[in-house]
Amino acid sequence: LGKKLSFGEGFPPRSVAIVGVSRNDDSDVPGYTGLKLLQILRGAGFQGRLYPVNPNASSIDGIKVYPDLTSIPERLDLAIVAVPPAAVPRVLEDCAAARVRNVQICTSGFGETGQDAAIRLEAQIREIALREGLRVIGPNCMGFHIPSVRMQMHTYTPLVEGPVGFVSQSGGHARIYLLRGPELGIGFSKVISYGNALTLDAPDFIEYLGEDSETRIICVYLEGVRDGTRLLEVVKRTNRLKPVVVWKGGLTTAGGRAAVSHTGSLAGDRTIWDAFFRQTGAIEVGSIEEMAEVTMALLRLKPSSGKRAAVLAAGGGSSVATGDICVQEGIDLPALSETTKARLLEFVSLVNQGVANPIDVPSVLTKAPRLKRACEVLAADPMIDMIILHMGAEFFVGPMAGSMAELQKDIAAQDSGRAKPVVIALSDEGQVRETEPYARQLREMHIVAYNSLQRACRALNRFAGYHRFLAEQSRE
Amino acid sequence: LGKKLSFGEGFPPRSVAIVGVSRNDDSDVPGYTGLKLLQILRGAGFQGRLYPVNPNASSIDGIKVYPDLTSIPERLDLAIVAVPPAAVPRVLEDCAAARVRNVQICTSGFGETGQDAAIRLEAQIREIALREGLRVIGPNCMGFHIPSVRMQMHTYTPLVEGPVGFVSQSGGHARIYLLRGPELGIGFSKVISYGNALTLDAPDFIEYLGEDSETRIICVYLEGVRDGTRLLEVVKRTNRLKPVVVWKGGLTTAGGRAAVSHTGSLAGDRTIWDAFFRQTGAIEVGSIEEMAEVTMALLRLKPSSGKRAAVLAAGGGSSVATGDICVQEGIDLPALSETTKARLLEFVSLVNQGVANPIDVPSVLTKAPRLKRACEVLAADPMIDMIILHMGAEFFVGPMAGSMAELQKDIAAQDSGRAKPVVIALSDEGQVRETEPYARQLREMHIVAYNSLQRACRALNRFAGYHRFLAEQSRE
Repeated sequence: LGKKLSFGEGFPPRSVAIVGVSRNDDSDVPGYTGLKLLQILRGAGFQGRLYPVNPNASSIDGIKVYPDLTSIPERLDLAIVAVPPAAVPRVLEDCAAARVRNVQICTSGFGETGQDAAIRLEAQIREIALREGLRVIGPNCMGFHIPSVRMQMHTYTPLVEGPVGFVSQSGGHARIYLLRGPELGIGFSKVISYGNALTLDAPDFIEYLGEDSETRIICVYLEGVRDGTRLLEVVKRTNRLKPVVVWKGGLTTAGGRAAVSHTGSLAGDRTIWDAFFRQTGAIEVGSIEEMAEVTMALLRLKPSSGKRAAVLAAGGGSSVATGDICVQEGIDLPALSETTKARLLEFVSLVNQGVANPIDVPSVLTKAPRLKRACEVLAADPMIDMIILHMGAEFFVGPMAGSMAELQKDIAAQDSGRAKPVVIALSDEGQVRETEPYARQLREMHIVAYNSLQRACRALNRFAGYHRFLAEQSRE
Repeated sequence: LGKKLSFGEGFPPRSVAIVGVSRNDDSDVPGYTGLKLLQILRGAGFQGRLYPVNPNASSIDGIKVYPDLTSIPERLDLAIVAVPPAAVPRVLEDCAAARVRNVQICTSGFGETGQDAAIRLEAQIREIALREGLRVIGPNCMGFHIPSVRMQMHTYTPLVEGPVGFVSQSGGHARIYLLRGPELGIGFSKVISYGNALTLDAPDFIEYLGEDSETRIICVYLEGVRDGTRLLEVVKRTNRLKPVVVWKGGLTTAGGRAAVSHTGSLAGDRTIWDAFFRQTGAIEVGSIEEMAEVTMALLRLKPSSGKRAAVLAAGGGSSVATGDICVQEGIDLPALSETTKARLLEFVSLVNQGVANPIDVPSVLTKAPRLKRACEVLAADPMIDMIILHMGAEFFVGPMAGSMAELQKDIAAQDSGRAKPVVIALSDEGQVRETEPYARQLREMHIVAYNSLQRACRALNRFAGYHRFLAEQSRE
């Protein structure tokens, strides 16, 4: 029943119908209505043609309304379906009649409810879709966010173009990434929320992004997948060309139970997914924050498969924690060589300071010329792959602000030519409110800055792990 | 050489000398000077008598200066020593001659530098201290923060009284806890920063706080300890009466190397410390944030050894993550019983929602009466020990703010009588900037609120684990 359909024809869409646009919204049910979607697309300035469909209206919000899809005077790239569940089968027949290229079903209330009648209804629409060869995104999904054509699935998410593609089984997670990404300097090529995966599934979208020239990094949020073998095969192939970052949700019993009730997915068990990550080399993350944080490193830092860091910090107690955190997050902190120590002691006093690694040197972090010299000494050490500056909000205000401004210029200027990555980790989690503005300022200068040392190390470990995987693959 | 000295006599101090107060500070060396300490104590309004000591001055900052300790006209509870390292032995002889009850040595530049001459100097002052029976806090330490007598070790840390004692080998960590604690509703009885532990060590201070009527919860930051057996014995005994929360720093190679260079401590290995936590039942944490977070639960929640939670959340994708996070952090999320589900479905629709656990119910979280009813249904389920409300900033603004205000009143009113703990976990880490003001507002109403679900679960798991340990002990 049905042949394999690839995704991409008529995408990004230029002619879009929205089926199920009522005159006004008065629903208490959570979720988007057709009218809301029409308003979002018009509000965003969507660069294509919009055709609302409603058999009982001739005009809504000042634009012409069509009674059905076959009455629309051009072939549609996309029909967005936002009618109640029971009306979906009839609309799909209409989509087939109008030869619509892609069908996005927003409507919820299918397999994910766990109720017999709803599961039967999902089986019925699946049968129609397969029989008619419909490329279905959804049901129970939010659809697309494509800054280049000003297409949006949520209100209040900025339209920031960039090289990151995101395939998300959850519209809520897509929203979070769209809000947080730009704060880390991340812009998007195409974001696709696909819900219950009726006919098109994650591998179809990943394959598309793998071939999309606007996409350099592919992020994926998955709950389940129908064809695990195909996912493995597609990610394995794609990840060698573009990094694929995957958050697999629902790996615990409680998370898996929620996945069933969210998108009707069977989440699968940990061992299967461990094998998936080992074989594909995809980068595993556990939240949208982590996804954004490793993406920032992939976007900005020169490829490096080494993970031996030198850490410059301030405060003895913090240095102890610094060492523990780095090691726990998989970053190696080799003891400094005698040569490197001696070169640092030329301008660093040992009173209330230390040149173990982590290097506890408040007097260095507060003076730009000394900091520059310390970075040079450390970068010259062949045992060191990267430098992490661990600093609190106090380094960005008052008398120290000048030093930091100089340092920022210095790091930013060396950006492309720098032999070894320099990353700033703001301390600590509890200070995020104070340090976040400085982090943004640094990121605007294309400096890789994290809100905590833990987050920095976690991202760097994954970043280096990806490049190590590529290096091992190319040796085989 | 020397008998066992217990700590407590002359504490909190009322008569305090500061040895090494110069007329002005012009040092480039990081760390505090005697003059700075004098200014901090006067600025805080210290409720005791201050005696600066400097043989070359008769008055500084408008107060009388003494040439040495024996010239001071009363017996001293505390001498704070802030002279250069080489002058410390002479000052200790003076302390002995003046029969000073406690000696705090701020001066750094001893064993922690790893340099031979400095290690020898530390051995020399240790010998003097043991011979003369001096109770030494330090060297290389910040000393005391005691809100009840307005004694302070740092500028800008608020003097907030409360039932939490903190024994910290690091002055920097003490500072972070003093800044963050009050934001979580935590006030302090006594905070003690003791650095290199020349004669008095962590067990002495823990023993003191165990007997201190103003202290209900004891927090400890340790890098190393001279007498491990005594630490085990003291914590084992104390933890049965008052919870002892311990952050052991330097458990990795890199962290341990930093500990040597910070306080000259040998940090010890993981297996030894695992046994320590197992035998004492002390609550292990890995940062000051975690220390404060479990302390908040210990302060506010009724004792509970169960860790089966019902989680109310909003958004299907988040619910999947919610389930995974809870389980990964050791909190059980049992599937709801058919009775409880049926009672929820009386007022909850399944469209875009779900009553698996986590319970994905935006329409409940946005309406106070529904939320109250849901909490009642869940609290009545004997399989549920606690309720976690997982909500983002959007629940506290606009039309929803009214609901939340009602809910806050409701939870706060039931506070003492509530059968099962209700905790609010604000989502997610990336939103801390937006949610932090709401978290503070909730905490001011004595509602336990965390900045993320992960942090909430981690603290609740430790909280329940402590009470389970006590219950098992009392059965033996």
